[in-house]
Amino acid sequence: EAPQKGREREFYQADFDLLGSAYVLADMEILAVAIAIFLSLGASKNDFILYLNSRSFMEQKLEGFGIGKKDMKTILNLIDKQDKIDEPTFMKLLQEVGIGSSVINDLQSFLTKPLSPAADPYFTRLFSYLKNYGIDSYCQINPNIVRGLDYYTGLVFEVKEKGGTMRALLGGGRYDNLVSSFDSKLSIPGVGFATSDVVLMEFLKEKGLIPKVKPNTSQVLITVLGEDMVPSCVEIAKLLRSNGISCELYPSSNRKLDKQLKYADRQNIPFAIILGPEETQKGIVKVKDMKTREQKEVKKEEVVKILKS
Amino acid sequence: EAPQKGREREFYQADFDLLGSAYVLADMEILAVAIAIFLSLGASKNDFILYLNSRSFMEQKLEGFGIGKKDMKTILNLIDKQDKIDEPTFMKLLQEVGIGSSVINDLQSFLTKPLSPAADPYFTRLFSYLKNYGIDSYCQINPNIVRGLDYYTGLVFEVKEKGGTMRALLGGGRYDNLVSSFDSKLSIPGVGFATSDVVLMEFLKEKGLIPKVKPNTSQVLITVLGEDMVPSCVEIAKLLRSNGISCELYPSSNRKLDKQLKYADRQNIPFAIILGPEETQKGIVKVKDMKTREQKEVKKEEVVKILKS
Repeated sequence: EAPQKGREREFYQADFDLLGSAYVLADMEILAVAIAIFLSLGASKNDFILYLNSRSFMEQKLEGFGIGKKDMKTILNLIDKQDKIDEPTFMKLLQEVGIGSSVINDLQSFLTKPLSPAADPYFTRLFSYLKNYGIDSYCQINPNIVRGLDYYTGLVFEVKEKGGTMRALLGGGRYDNLVSSFDSKLSIPGVGFATSDVVLMEFLKEKGLIPKVKPNTSQVLITVLGEDMVPSCVEIAKLLRSNGISCELYPSSNRKLDKQLKYADRQNIPFAIILGPEETQKGIVKVKDMKTREQKEVKKEEVVKILKS
Repeated sequence: EAPQKGREREFYQADFDLLGSAYVLADMEILAVAIAIFLSLGASKNDFILYLNSRSFMEQKLEGFGIGKKDMKTILNLIDKQDKIDEPTFMKLLQEVGIGSSVINDLQSFLTKPLSPAADPYFTRLFSYLKNYGIDSYCQINPNIVRGLDYYTGLVFEVKEKGGTMRALLGGGRYDNLVSSFDSKLSIPGVGFATSDVVLMEFLKEKGLIPKVKPNTSQVLITVLGEDMVPSCVEIAKLLRSNGISCELYPSSNRKLDKQLKYADRQNIPFAIILGPEETQKGIVKVKDMKTREQKEVKKEEVVKILKS
């Protein structure tokens, strides 16, 4: 596949799966996770929509139109590919499968009409759970969603970007026979979805949801007033850091105090520790609040306590 | 380069740099970061050692042995490659540079003797700072460390794994002319190092320092006692999760209570919420402590408060 926006040659895929339950509640739970991801990224109802459908419902429906078992897979694959081809091509490809034109008409009109939860007992139940959880308004039944993978047995769904590219941001479904297809002794139903870092990043960019990263400035600047003060300054740095207070040593010992304090101002460092020969003699340090410009004399042992309060 | 342990075709590199200061205190700070990384990973003095040296000290020293400017780079590169070649090859390559055998002897004896901080004022000062910071015992001056890159001007260092492969785990140094070599109008001194995820991971594996990941079990199992109880159960799940309490809904509505509680026991879930028709009528839920087996009746509105206490 050629690289394009949201489809790089390399990406990380994240999978979310709930194994062991064939119950509709598990379907609701996995949809809740999918929606929680977008809400936690700061997206709203205007940014995304979760389209869902059911494979078993679709197969039943297609059977009702007179489509036989042998054409089922081909037709479902054509429905899945619809958004990559135009309407006449879709029609042509349906005809090539060899189904009658009245069947094609039924299918066409079915695919263009919105489905309500009343369309199937499964949808009714799922939507009642989604409503209990308060997320039904993010979800919509869409008969065009069938997903490409053949192993889906029930629920299939996609989260799509609203507006813009309408790109699929994640997709998944129920795969009750997948595990047993690898080991016939294991019968483990499952439901899940996958998404990729690249697709989510493109989405965040387009919706302006990428958080602004503020560089972490130090909490404290330890001024260094001469070479002979360095040992005490280094010890204070060690003390603060081992107590979880980020600090920096002024990276030169031959700058005047006001130059060093100006640096703290420029870097938005909220506190400065001043430690000259006089302070050392008294066994104290001066802690200067760079905002209020107030400074107080603090015993060395109490510096951590003062800065943490 | 062929892939081997610690050298994959792909890896992430992490860089740590302190730009703008040519002061020895900046060298100490960057070494403190390098050591803090290993200590924070749970490594101890038995697991790693930081070897350091100085390029300017080395150049001065080699000059003292009578090695001219034009051979300097070649000789430094040979020293850097020493651990990949055997002693006779090293000697042969030195001879091929064209330096006299007495110079080679001086160099050889210099490289095999440990250096004390007294060897150079820079080392003396650096080690006094390292001592003030309490990390001198992790560091050792090693004349064989010169690093391959030509842009280093002062400090050069490597953290090496102790025992086993003696693999270099990170490396760096001072590069005071690197920035100006790209833009002659900028004169920005710098000191820093780089490491890779692959190398650190191999180190953690070999030293048995990889933390055991415990799967995050839910705090609460919400039992589901029949289809008509699902709406209330789902609402409780939503309530708990939106308050930061991780919980799971029992993924079926037709299992007896004791089966569901056994599941909580098996999964080490500390609390169960029991919510039957009787409780719904009273507007309460039962919160069961799975360890003490005690259960208390709690008003729905108070479930969050009770579980957070």
